[in-house]
Amino acid sequence: MNIEVCFSPQSYPLFHNPGSIVVVIDILRATSAITTAFFNGVAKMIPVSTIEEAQKYKDQGYLVAAERNAEIVKGFDLGNSPFGYMNAKVKGKTIVITTTNGTQAIHAAKGTYKIVIGSFLNLDTVIEYLRKEKKDVLFLCSGWKNKFNLEDTLYAGAVAEQLIYKYNFNSICDSTIAAMELYKLAKHDLFGFLANSSHRNRLEKLDLERDIKYCLTPNQCPVLPVLEGKFLIKGA
Amino acid sequence: MNIEVCFSPQSYPLFHNPGSIVVVIDILRATSAITTAFFNGVAKMIPVSTIEEAQKYKDQGYLVAAERNAEIVKGFDLGNSPFGYMNAKVKGKTIVITTTNGTQAIHAAKGTYKIVIGSFLNLDTVIEYLRKEKKDVLFLCSGWKNKFNLEDTLYAGAVAEQLIYKYNFNSICDSTIAAMELYKLAKHDLFGFLANSSHRNRLEKLDLERDIKYCLTPNQCPVLPVLEGKFLIKGA
Repeated sequence: MNIEVCFSPQSYPLFHNPGSIVVVIDILRATSAITTAFFNGVAKMIPVSTIEEAQKYKDQGYLVAAERNAEIVKGFDLGNSPFGYMNAKVKGKTIVITTTNGTQAIHAAKGTYKIVIGSFLNLDTVIEYLRKEKKDVLFLCSGWKNKFNLEDTLYAGAVAEQLIYKYNFNSICDSTIAAMELYKLAKHDLFGFLANSSHRNRLEKLDLERDIKYCLTPNQCPVLPVLEGKFLIKGA
Repeated sequence: MNIEVCFSPQSYPLFHNPGSIVVVIDILRATSAITTAFFNGVAKMIPVSTIEEAQKYKDQGYLVAAERNAEIVKGFDLGNSPFGYMNAKVKGKTIVITTTNGTQAIHAAKGTYKIVIGSFLNLDTVIEYLRKEKKDVLFLCSGWKNKFNLEDTLYAGAVAEQLIYKYNFNSICDSTIAAMELYKLAKHDLFGFLANSSHRNRLEKLDLERDIKYCLTPNQCPVLPVLEGKFLIKGA
């Protein structure tokens, strides 16, 4: 059971392994929002890459979330703030979602054995699932417009550390070592460690500190969103 | 004066800035070998991407270095072991070189303000040059077949730390933060820190521990190879 960490959706083809479980990570905020949505009773989600696809679904009457550059796209119902999904109106619904980075990453990984959604909010649920499945694991960090980011890397390190030290997974991948070393440095104060990170600064300008703190707090939403065909559904 | 770190030649287009100095890094071993070559009196080097181009130069009578997967390509004069360049026969010569990763990175960055060759062997020379030039700096890690590697990242962190803390450069780039944090962890024992790294293991199988220790020892070759047209020349 081998672990690799891919820092950008652009690099995914270098890592593709049809037998892997791909854990898609976009801590700030797409995968945190998706995890929160399922915990709050959303039935299904449809991740799409473009605003145009999202608009087509909206025209058909779907509830649609669309975020670009950390803000809700004008005319859509939701963005990628997790707090938008803590709402009775989402319960039982199918929600279409497109975001700057996270939904692109989900599409990049299509064709692998299984795609699941990872965030600190469902940290232990993801670890438990991977432990039981006993497959190769690829952590796919969404990054920011195909560049490396810290928060997705820290999460990959958090899960990898558990799988390697407790459950006999292994890795010969330098990006796994880097992710685990960075997580070791950061784990006692994730929020502080990210103080100078580019995306935290981007969100702070938008007054989203509450979102950031929420997204960095583990195990608030013990659900596992998984991709089945074009739908994300609640898998555990 | 802004600093960015790019972890893979594949990602270079995301970082391209025509006003930047690009520091190309392939610690194990292309940029270490190039630095060593100039310190030992090589006049010029011509980095080429493919074995075919290298062969054409060989047919014209050039001294040609060709490495793939850490070994000298059959029929060529040199590989990328720095020790191959500590030799009177290279003095005053023009050497053509193609390697698995490093020469690809040099070609990826063409079109920027200046391309220079960085290694631990010329660490302080690179820092001094960048300090005086006062330009934006992009550290371009060669990686391994477009994947992230640790040793190139550590070097980027080593130089970035000096530029930021001593010389008023700045960075809003998460990969710079990661590189500096990793370098802080590793700097008192680079060889030990890389014990589990993928490329160190790749080279150890080939009995290249002496090469690795040499490549990780700073400031043995105070020269600065720079690209001018198709030639690398000694720039400082």
